[in-house]
Amino acid sequence: MQRYFAKDESLTLNDSDYHHIKKVMRMKTGDVYEVVYDNVVYKCKITDNDFSYEILEKYKVESSKREIIIAFSLLKEQKLDYVLQKGTETGASSFIPLITKRSVIKFDKGKEISKLKRWNTIAKEASEQCFRPDIPEIKKVMTIDELINVSADLKILLTLNEKSKNIKKVLQKNNKCDKIIIVIGPEGGFEDVEEKKLIENGFVSVTLGKNVLRAETAPIVALSMINYEFMR
Amino acid sequence: MQRYFAKDESLTLNDSDYHHIKKVMRMKTGDVYEVVYDNVVYKCKITDNDFSYEILEKYKVESSKREIIIAFSLLKEQKLDYVLQKGTETGASSFIPLITKRSVIKFDKGKEISKLKRWNTIAKEASEQCFRPDIPEIKKVMTIDELINVSADLKILLTLNEKSKNIKKVLQKNNKCDKIIIVIGPEGGFEDVEEKKLIENGFVSVTLGKNVLRAETAPIVALSMINYEFMR
Repeated sequence: MQRYFAKDESLTLNDSDYHHIKKVMRMKTGDVYEVVYDNVVYKCKITDNDFSYEILEKYKVESSKREIIIAFSLLKEQKLDYVLQKGTETGASSFIPLITKRSVIKFDKGKEISKLKRWNTIAKEASEQCFRPDIPEIKKVMTIDELINVSADLKILLTLNEKSKNIKKVLQKNNKCDKIIIVIGPEGGFEDVEEKKLIENGFVSVTLGKNVLRAETAPIVALSMINYEFMR
Repeated sequence: MQRYFAKDESLTLNDSDYHHIKKVMRMKTGDVYEVVYDNVVYKCKITDNDFSYEILEKYKVESSKREIIIAFSLLKEQKLDYVLQKGTETGASSFIPLITKRSVIKFDKGKEISKLKRWNTIAKEASEQCFRPDIPEIKKVMTIDELINVSADLKILLTLNEKSKNIKKVLQKNNKCDKIIIVIGPEGGFEDVEEKKLIENGFVSVTLGKNVLRAETAPIVALSMINYEFMR
């Protein structure tokens, strides 16, 4: 069933969602779709062509109690979209785009608002598609100096340094944490000064295995492994 | 360092690789690249402009002893490429493209050889990029009836059926297996008759969690979770 996130408690949708229902899904009177607002799912049956509906059923859904923040170095558009879409599917609670020394993207602060709007749309659509009860938040673009002030029970720095512990050892030793932040560097990794600063500020350097993962692949693999560790 | 897979034990590369070294990487005399052949890595130093080289160092690398086969329903080109590239990064041993009832792609048998050539190139380049010592094999396109005859210690069917066990329970109960096959259905999942046939033939139906993953995301998540389970 198609799912949409409402803007308010009277279950108003975005215009683009109404367009999707009518023009893309071609729904008619009698068809049913789901609307989510404030962690409640409403099964709505269309009662006429002006999007009047009756609520057939409603039930509360819980978001994961564990918060997982993905902080990733700015990437080219397609790869960045990919991190947001797949990261949403695999359960990221929020995303922090990072400006790093080796970022391939020169970030234009003037475009931040329009970028955030675009990124939030990707997260919203991915949440609807994977039937998450919530939409991950895309935080404003940060520098490493801002990132180190974000609090968390466990701070993970993904690295290619083979001397680092693997993520399993670190997660099993920290299996009580409710808030995890994972930071992923740009292609080629962070510069030493950046890694040093992160580690000095409580980040634990971990590997995800032997293979050198692309910057857009690593967050999805890390999220999958964290989900697995906490799977019951 | 750049890595290439050789065609033979005299470390001959594909023409496209020589082009990459010269025109893309712009390597000159004195530059060093890695060549892999038969699980041995050779550090090669260019000694002149005609790709003569001296071997500075060679060492053996082992591929994973555990074989993981990803059988996935044919997808649109971009998504299929994505499964091959990310699946290679996350350690798939081989891939089996499947014809299923709900495949969005109508497979043209006449184009199979050219498709396989293209798919193998994607796997080779992904292996070079992630520094795998081996290139996963792309098997010929199969039907479900052919797939059920592929042997494995553990056969996993990824499903959206919430009543299924989660993958962690299944892997922990089967943590001795050396050959695992994972089958992923098309968007919308397999038809009941297909799932029934797979289960009757030894496939265990498992979930990867609550969210409904896209057909191209599920194999990467499953591979990541298997890597995590067997991480030491």
